[in-house]
Amino acid sequence: MNNKTNNQKIASLSEDFSQWYLDIIEKAGLAEYSAVKGCMIIKPYGYAIWENIQKILDSKFKETGHKNAYFPLLIPKSFLSREASHVKGFAKECAVVTHYRLIDNPDGNGVMVDPQAKLEEELIIRPTSETIIYDTYSRWVQSWRDLPILINQWANVVRWEMRTRLFLRTTEFLWQEGHTVHAEAEEAKEEALKIIKIYQDFSEKYLAMPVIVGIKPEHDKFPGALCTYCIEAMMQDKKSLQAGTSHNLGQNFSKAFDIKFTDKNGKIQYAWQTSWGVSTRLIGGLIMTHSDDKGLVLPPNIAPIKVVIIPIYKNENEEKEVRKNVEKIKKDLLNTNMEIEVDYRDNLSPGFKFNDWEKKGVPLRIEIGLKDIEKKQVVMVRRDTGEKKIILMSELKKVIIDELLNIQENLFSRAKKFREANSFIINNYEELINILNGDGAYVYSHWCGDEACENKVKEITKATIRCIALDQKEEEGQCIVCGKRSKKRVIFSKAY
Amino acid sequence: MNNKTNNQKIASLSEDFSQWYLDIIEKAGLAEYSAVKGCMIIKPYGYAIWENIQKILDSKFKETGHKNAYFPLLIPKSFLSREASHVKGFAKECAVVTHYRLIDNPDGNGVMVDPQAKLEEELIIRPTSETIIYDTYSRWVQSWRDLPILINQWANVVRWEMRTRLFLRTTEFLWQEGHTVHAEAEEAKEEALKIIKIYQDFSEKYLAMPVIVGIKPEHDKFPGALCTYCIEAMMQDKKSLQAGTSHNLGQNFSKAFDIKFTDKNGKIQYAWQTSWGVSTRLIGGLIMTHSDDKGLVLPPNIAPIKVVIIPIYKNENEEKEVRKNVEKIKKDLLNTNMEIEVDYRDNLSPGFKFNDWEKKGVPLRIEIGLKDIEKKQVVMVRRDTGEKKIILMSELKKVIIDELLNIQENLFSRAKKFREANSFIINNYEELINILNGDGAYVYSHWCGDEACENKVKEITKATIRCIALDQKEEEGQCIVCGKRSKKRVIFSKAY
Repeated sequence: MNNKTNNQKIASLSEDFSQWYLDIIEKAGLAEYSAVKGCMIIKPYGYAIWENIQKILDSKFKETGHKNAYFPLLIPKSFLSREASHVKGFAKECAVVTHYRLIDNPDGNGVMVDPQAKLEEELIIRPTSETIIYDTYSRWVQSWRDLPILINQWANVVRWEMRTRLFLRTTEFLWQEGHTVHAEAEEAKEEALKIIKIYQDFSEKYLAMPVIVGIKPEHDKFPGALCTYCIEAMMQDKKSLQAGTSHNLGQNFSKAFDIKFTDKNGKIQYAWQTSWGVSTRLIGGLIMTHSDDKGLVLPPNIAPIKVVIIPIYKNENEEKEVRKNVEKIKKDLLNTNMEIEVDYRDNLSPGFKFNDWEKKGVPLRIEIGLKDIEKKQVVMVRRDTGEKKIILMSELKKVIIDELLNIQENLFSRAKKFREANSFIINNYEELINILNGDGAYVYSHWCGDEACENKVKEITKATIRCIALDQKEEEGQCIVCGKRSKKRVIFSKAY
Repeated sequence: MNNKTNNQKIASLSEDFSQWYLDIIEKAGLAEYSAVKGCMIIKPYGYAIWENIQKILDSKFKETGHKNAYFPLLIPKSFLSREASHVKGFAKECAVVTHYRLIDNPDGNGVMVDPQAKLEEELIIRPTSETIIYDTYSRWVQSWRDLPILINQWANVVRWEMRTRLFLRTTEFLWQEGHTVHAEAEEAKEEALKIIKIYQDFSEKYLAMPVIVGIKPEHDKFPGALCTYCIEAMMQDKKSLQAGTSHNLGQNFSKAFDIKFTDKNGKIQYAWQTSWGVSTRLIGGLIMTHSDDKGLVLPPNIAPIKVVIIPIYKNENEEKEVRKNVEKIKKDLLNTNMEIEVDYRDNLSPGFKFNDWEKKGVPLRIEIGLKDIEKKQVVMVRRDTGEKKIILMSELKKVIIDELLNIQENLFSRAKKFREANSFIINNYEELINILNGDGAYVYSHWCGDEACENKVKEITKATIRCIALDQKEEEGQCIVCGKRSKKRVIFSKAY
């Protein structure tokens, strides 16, 4: 669709990262804004990426004992207020349903809200589902035998954002949210950590996006949580993307929603909880980690199409011969479980098609014409490096399988090297400010734990503390801002 | 969870169908109402059925060339009015978002809607997505080369129902909605028919629920459609359930939303469209087609758990031996791709477990104790017939595979026989009224096409015309109400 826009150029990554990002999304046909402010339409190619994300994560959740369920979209307004920090965190961005009927406009022009159909209590479209789910859990949990509850939900949520950005921050987005209940504090902590490691594993092995697993500073944790674990990924503009979070909720919500159980000794206890989620934001991270000035670059493990075949011919006779060979290749690759697309569009030149599939980030391109067929070979081009190779047809299957593995590895190690080249251990305040105000980076510096010190850095640089990496060793040091004693370094960076 | 409620009895199907239905849902742990009026919580076991429905239908849609995408939850109020009959059909049941922020209540008690944060134009939570999707399509479609568009969406929708019933009619429900665009009228008609046949095939082969494929009378078609095809299934109370619909929209929406394309001759044309959907209502149909006074009955092809194994032992030594054999059986069945559950709960008696899994409708139960092991056998019980058999362990795998096929077939043919036994061809008005006011049935009678004639029957019997079956042959006749000429019989029945 809309081929004409596809001829316009993609902005340069190094010159205008922001425009480049939007151009990639448009030219690859991933998503676009709708008529509703801040809400996006996820187009089929973008949605296919989301379906792959869902499929893989869903199986990881199920392997670790979680089950899916579904809770209402709408939340009574009063539920939100039950946990004090939770309502503070979300009240400012809530879509509110106040009426349940439209009637004809008296002027004969369209419809209007029926003032008679006002709800007694307003309903909020879920910005996240802790409150509606935990109201339910309070009825489900009675004995230690009812625990643990390990439930996940795939859903849409709405947060009324003033400034939106496709995939990264939209008024409505798609996500999964896990909500678990445990008998023991330690078990909840383990669950929250198990999930953040699933997120890390998924990001690195499938999205080829290296992440830092860390814990958020106290003042930046999820509203209502005891602590928040996160994965942070460095984008190609050296800003950080929070790509997933897992919260140890402690007993904050179980006390607010009265989730109690009788333990093995007959004593009544408040339960321990976690919640965790990743969203369509991951697709934004995927784009900003790998793509280049030619368009999207997709790691094979998440690409909806792994190989595209471009048949090349000048007339009907040639076409017939080429088609025959293309079908043979497809048949050969059938049992490899690989998604292959053949571009038979008859109104476009091979050159146009090459560009088009480069924009869509398909990992491998196969070109096949009559001359290739005579030599029993094809031309193969890697999307990540642009490398072009001649491959004997008899070896094609093996080469494709190997090359897709190579691409997956290369994208991950390239991204990891990029992050490492742009990560610095800094002990000097001026240096910190210079780096953050310059090209950007992950800066590992000591911090005393005081929000005021972070704010000072933030005012000057717009960078914030992203997290304290979990694999960080304890080390004696001094807060880079105030000089007070510190035992750990945090990561300062600008962020999405 | 909540074992204590599980000890209460299930109402009798023949004495109180309505209560029986709710009891089945509760005892099987499928769903429950939430704190929000008319909105349900789909519990893990109920959601697992929905996941199976999704998986199977989704692959059928993809096999026939459809792709998934995602469009916004919220629709500008003015969009709804663009197609005149569409707005009439949905305005009365719309959830309306009017504000986007909450603030602290001045009295210090909770939060209130911020009057400053009023939307300029109210937004409607989608009751169905024709308007928001077709606004988008008007930008996507320019040339015949952009057609067909074959898109499906899995989503939640909200219709403000005054009287709700779990799965059958809830304020929020889950569904899929397909929205296609074609260059030719004939192609749109074929698409609408192709889909209704996919729905039929799915209902009959997986849900074991026989359906009549028909066309709705003019006055009962989808608001804005040219014609509506439907599948109708007879429940065990002899009422009909509309289980899925597929609409040939003609050019009604393309004209309202300006979806035009340049055809091969360079002429600008309005496009031809279809939309179609099935929802979580299918689960209600599944329940009411097969279940009995002991609980849910699930056809193997849709059951989340196909076989449950109940180990029977008196002490730790016996348990060890039984477990060993259970694990062997599980291993044997591993490569059959069958979902098997072993109930190792240590606080419940075998008898309690038998009942519990009967309530959950698992097709086959295997009982295995020390005596069975000595004889190298197990006890196998069919959920649909209650039949009990002794099976040699060496033959178990084969027997299970065969028996699941038998159960699937038996459930379908039982339901079909039930429908046939309760379907009548009637030419006499008094007889029609008597049957419809009596036990209920599908009554095939001639009808002139006038809504007034249907209304007369409806007033006296509450029954309506469900559809005109597509496989119906033309036959000369007279309207059963007014005596005017008619060429086809329609189906009268009470309905959900």
